[in-house]
Order: sequence, then structure tokens, then C-alpha cells
Amino acid sequence: MPEMHAARRARLVEALAEQELDAMLVTRLLNVRYLCGFTGSNAALLVTAAGAVLTTDGRYITQSAQESPDVERAIGGGVMTALVERAGATGIGRLGFEAHEMTVEQHTALSAKAGPPMVAAGRLVEQLRAVKDDAEIALLREACAIGDRAFAALLPAITVGRSERELGVELEALMRGEGGDGPSFETIVASGPHSAIPHHRPTDRLVERGDFVKFDFGSLYRGYHADMTRTVVIGPAADWQHEIYDVVRRSQQAGVDTLAVGATTGEIDLAARVVIDDAGFGDHFTHSLGHGVGLEIHEAPTLSSGGSDRLADRTPVTVEPGIYLEGRGGVRIEDTLVVRESGIELLTTTTKDLLVL
Amino acid sequence: MPEMHAARRARLVEALAEQELDAMLVTRLLNVRYLCGFTGSNAALLVTAAGAVLTTDGRYITQSAQESPDVERAIGGGVMTALVERAGATGIGRLGFEAHEMTVEQHTALSAKAGPPMVAAGRLVEQLRAVKDDAEIALLREACAIGDRAFAALLPAITVGRSERELGVELEALMRGEGGDGPSFETIVASGPHSAIPHHRPTDRLVERGDFVKFDFGSLYRGYHADMTRTVVIGPAADWQHEIYDVVRRSQQAGVDTLAVGATTGEIDLAARVVIDDAGFGDHFTHSLGHGVGLEIHEAPTLSSGGSDRLADRTPVTVEPGIYLEGRGGVRIEDTLVVRESGIELLTTTTKDLLVL
Repeated sequence: MPEMHAARRARLVEALAEQELDAMLVTRLLNVRYLCGFTGSNAALLVTAAGAVLTTDGRYITQSAQESPDVERAIGGGVMTALVERAGATGIGRLGFEAHEMTVEQHTALSAKAGPPMVAAGRLVEQLRAVKDDAEIALLREACAIGDRAFAALLPAITVGRSERELGVELEALMRGEGGDGPSFETIVASGPHSAIPHHRPTDRLVERGDFVKFDFGSLYRGYHADMTRTVVIGPAADWQHEIYDVVRRSQQAGVDTLAVGATTGEIDLAARVVIDDAGFGDHFTHSLGHGVGLEIHEAPTLSSGGSDRLADRTPVTVEPGIYLEGRGGVRIEDTLVVRESGIELLTTTTKDLLVL
Repeated sequence: MPEMHAARRARLVEALAEQELDAMLVTRLLNVRYLCGFTGSNAALLVTAAGAVLTTDGRYITQSAQESPDVERAIGGGVMTALVERAGATGIGRLGFEAHEMTVEQHTALSAKAGPPMVAAGRLVEQLRAVKDDAEIALLREACAIGDRAFAALLPAITVGRSERELGVELEALMRGEGGDGPSFETIVASGPHSAIPHHRPTDRLVERGDFVKFDFGSLYRGYHADMTRTVVIGPAADWQHEIYDVVRRSQQAGVDTLAVGATTGEIDLAARVVIDDAGFGDHFTHSLGHGVGLEIHEAPTLSSGGSDRLADRTPVTVEPGIYLEGRGGVRIEDTLVVRESGIELLTTTTKDLLVL
């Protein structure tokens, strides 16, 4: 889809002009992929108003021609050095670079080359990436649908005596069977007391009667990451389980209800957080509310306390409050949703009612 | 295994003294894991002769206490900032940092804090990591054995009409079934003309009669990465297939035969490369010969042309020459082996005879 990539580069060129930069040296591989489609593991991209140049190495001659037919390609040598020297030779003035990605070592080496002055340009491409185009939203929608279908298929298998590890492997296999390209992050299956650990890796612990079982998972689909959390209970559910589930559920809904173009990330976090605070569990919600999602599982914007960024049209985010009671268990409920002018689209459609299995 | 981690930190402290550094700010997460066992996604470690301090965030309170019981732990705030300020407050003189990992943005921010002078310290921890301790070699051995068992189980399934993608999914599932924690990198299954692409991602192409089918894969096992390539042919094999397979086989053996404590990385690469050069295929062997393997799939040392590093005792490396004929097909054969004073241990034990299936 070269037109799509060209449109993204055109947006970047506009952003460069606002910062009085003549060109941008893009070295974050995900940003290279976003701007020209190339998915190899060694690359850099020089973007100017006059066009773009992709550098990579000999392993990727064929792949780079297939994936990035509409940019000039240069093979061999240091991928960054070649572009800095090119920028110097073509009279580029101020060259933006990704200071959040380039290492001190790389910067020291490049500064010794015959290139233009290098200017830390901030997260320009990440800012563009927060707002998705139609193709990206379609991929995210399918990534999330894969997770929904797989979780529906897993539900009958969540029974006493199954291990966290088995359930995790089975869920990942189901996602692949539904067309996924692999887990979009390390699948979390956390049972009983383990469910009180926000980021728990599946162990050989067997599911027991009365356990909360928390699943935080998603499928990768053509580079895009789904993200969903559901917490079920192996019945019968105790009163305390109903109580904290209900609080998290209401908190999550309050967060979703606050999503809107123009809302600040901080006010969305706050709307969800006050529900948990008011119920007396504020000390047990130990992370931020949510995050953008796309080519990365965590990307801009971050929904957290005090955040002042405003949500733009076509921004996918997660909303995922939790309550974690150490030694007993915890609940997290997470959706991925797209914020639009026309309303909120829910991408993860599995029920949020408490499932007592 | 706190003793193991303490021993690794003691080796680092010795290396620091040689560079007249009082402490090291370790920010590469794999290096943090290597030095104290912590596997979370946000952490930094300050290592001094007097002890080590691990910083992470609230998600990892429980996990960090479990994984790193023998170091001081500090939760919350910026993980690097906290350690730089701690170094400043405790009168540390020269503070080494990982210039190949720290970004320009991070360095700029830390330089503004009340800390000691920060000195680019090179790849000190990576150099330590090239040489493995017994526990690491045992994990690599099992990781490789998982791949061998899985490939043996896959062989009967490599038949005309199966897709690359199906075979890749099946191989990964077999590795998990054998106890693996997931693929140690993106599994390569490349059939027919695709086998001429050194790094090919599985597609829906169906295996045909007369195809080379190249598998480059490995299992992750408790953080350690197996790496093996085998190329089979769907019979009958043509003369050109026998020819290039035989050349790659002899090249690979020549490389393995040159492995020894004290050998330079360049002479090992050369020993394998001349076999391919002499057979007239030098232009079709487009990558370096091999690499170290451990907590990363590619780590020190690199076996490539002109390399002058000398192999040390207890160093695992891959040896993986290839010949790639665009449009026709290619062959790569790769083993993971451990170089020791006492001899070479082959970890990937699947036959390298040409399998005509």
C-alpha cells in the first residue's frame, strides 16, 4: 500500500516544517515500518520533502524492494551513517533525529561524520502514529476479533485442575487458529492468589475452586496488537469477589464513558480512579488506566494521573482498571476502543459480566 | 540462584576496577536480568563493590522480591534517575553507563541530575555474558534439545501440499509440547525459491516436489535461545541441489573444525568461507558465519570476516554458512556449539546429512 505510506510521510514532512527541520533521520524500526512498510531488522529512513531513502543490508535486498517499492533504497554499510552522509552531500540544513531511540554511542559516531547539524526532534512519528488511518483500524479490529473468538472457544476449558501454563498455551493456539500471527505480548494467565500480581507469567499452578482467573492477552495481526483483559471466577464466587469485580466493572465503565475527542488523558484516568478510590480500594489500583495501541502494544497516548494530552479523532486506546489484593486475588477488566468524532468503537466485544464458571 | 548472580556481579566489579570506574549504571534489561535475575520490563541496576541496588516500578514489587532477593530494591520514580541520584548521594566518583543502550534523550535528562560524572563504559556486561556459566550452558543445552526433538517429530509432516505457515505453526507447537517457552525468534520456513531468501517469513506457499525447504528455528527455554537451521529437499533432488548442499555442508564442517579457545572470529569465518569461495559460490554467501547465543539470539562474539576477537572457554556460538541462488533456492546449515578448553560440544544434534523426503 505505497499510497498509504506516502500519505504518512507527507504528514511527517508537514510536522518537520513546523519545527524548521529540513529532514528527519528515522531510526526506530517501527517508525521506519510505519513510514515505508519495510519490516526488516536493520534499517533507517531519511525523509525529506523531496522524497525518502531507505537503507538496509544485504539480507533484505529482495524484501525491501517488495515492501517499499516507492522509496529509494540503498543497501550496505552502516544504515545511519549512509543517510547522514547523504544528508550532508545533498545540502540538507537541520536534520532531525529520534533522541528517544538513538543511543549515545550511535550519536557520538554519527556526529563525527560529514553531515548536517543533528537536532533532537522528539517523538514526531509516534505522535503521528497515535492517530490511525482506516487500514490500521481495520487491522486492529481484526486483531481484537481474533482474541474474542479465541477466548470464547477457551471458556469451556477453564476448569478446576488445568494449569495456568496449559490455558495460556491453549489460548495462544486458539488465536493462531483464528488467523492470528502470534501473541501480541506475553500472555498473562493468573489464577487464585496469582491474580493479585498485575503482570504475572503463567506457572504450573492448577486452577482451584473459588479462584479468580485473570487473562490479559491479545493477538498480533499483520503488525497490529490487540489487548484485552477478562477476569473470571471458578464458582462459587465469594462476596469479596463480587464486591471488587463490581467496583472494577463500574470503574472501567466510567473510564469508557469519559472517552471523547478532546478529553484529556488525565480526566479519563481520574473518572475511572475515583470509582475505585470511593470504594476504598484506591491503594490497590497501582498502575495507570490505559494506553494507545497499534504497531506497539503500548504507545501514545498514555491514560494516567495528571495527563494533559487531549485525545484526537481516530485514536485507539485501552481502558484497564484493576484491584489487586495481595495473597487473595485481583481483578482487571480491559477493553481496546477507538475514539472518534462519531463516537466510541468497542473492538473487544467479549462480555464484561462476571463469568462464574 | 542468588549465588550465581552475585558471582556475575563480582566479575563486573573486577571489570569496572580495570576501567577505573567506581560503579556501573546498568540499563539494558537483559543485562539487569543477567546480573540479578529480575525479568520485569522496567528496571535499572546500580552495581558497586559495596553492593547492588535494583530500581523498578509498582507493578513489580512482588516479582522483584522473588527474583532478586539478594539486592537492595527501590520502587517508584524514574528507575535511572533514582540510581544516578543515589550514586551522587553516596559519593561515587566515576559512574559507568551503557552508551550502546542509553538514548540521547535519557542521557540528556540524567546529566541534569545531581550525580557523578557519567562515563561511557562500553559493552562490559555483554563481554561477561559471552562466557557462560554452567547453569547457562545447561539451559542452552535443553533449549537446543527441545528443537531437535520437535524437528524429528515434524519431519514426517514435511510433505507436498503443506504450507510454509502451517509447518511453522506446527514446529512451534511441537517445541512447546517438548517443554519450550516459545520460539526464540521468528521461525523461518522457506520453500522452493523462497529458500534463496536468507531471512524469509513463512507464507501460504505450498511445498512442491523438488523444493528445498529451509527451517531456521529454535526454542526459548527460561530466557535462553536455541538456534538451528536445517535444509531438506522434497525428492527427487536435482544435481544442483546436491552440489550446493554438499558445498555448504563442507563449509559448515570447516567452520566447526576451526572452533577452539584462542581462535579468532575472523579465522573461523574464513575457514568456512573459502570452501564456498573455492566452489565458485562466494557471491551467494551474503552474511557472516555465526554469532554467540544466550539471553539474546544474537550476542557476542560475532564470527565474521576480519574479526580479531579470540574465543574464550565456555563460549556458545552458531556456525551457519549458506548459499542462496535467487529464484531457484538456497541452503543453510546451522549448529549451536559450545567452545571449551576440553573440546567442542554440539548442542544441536539433528543430522546434517541431506534429507530427501
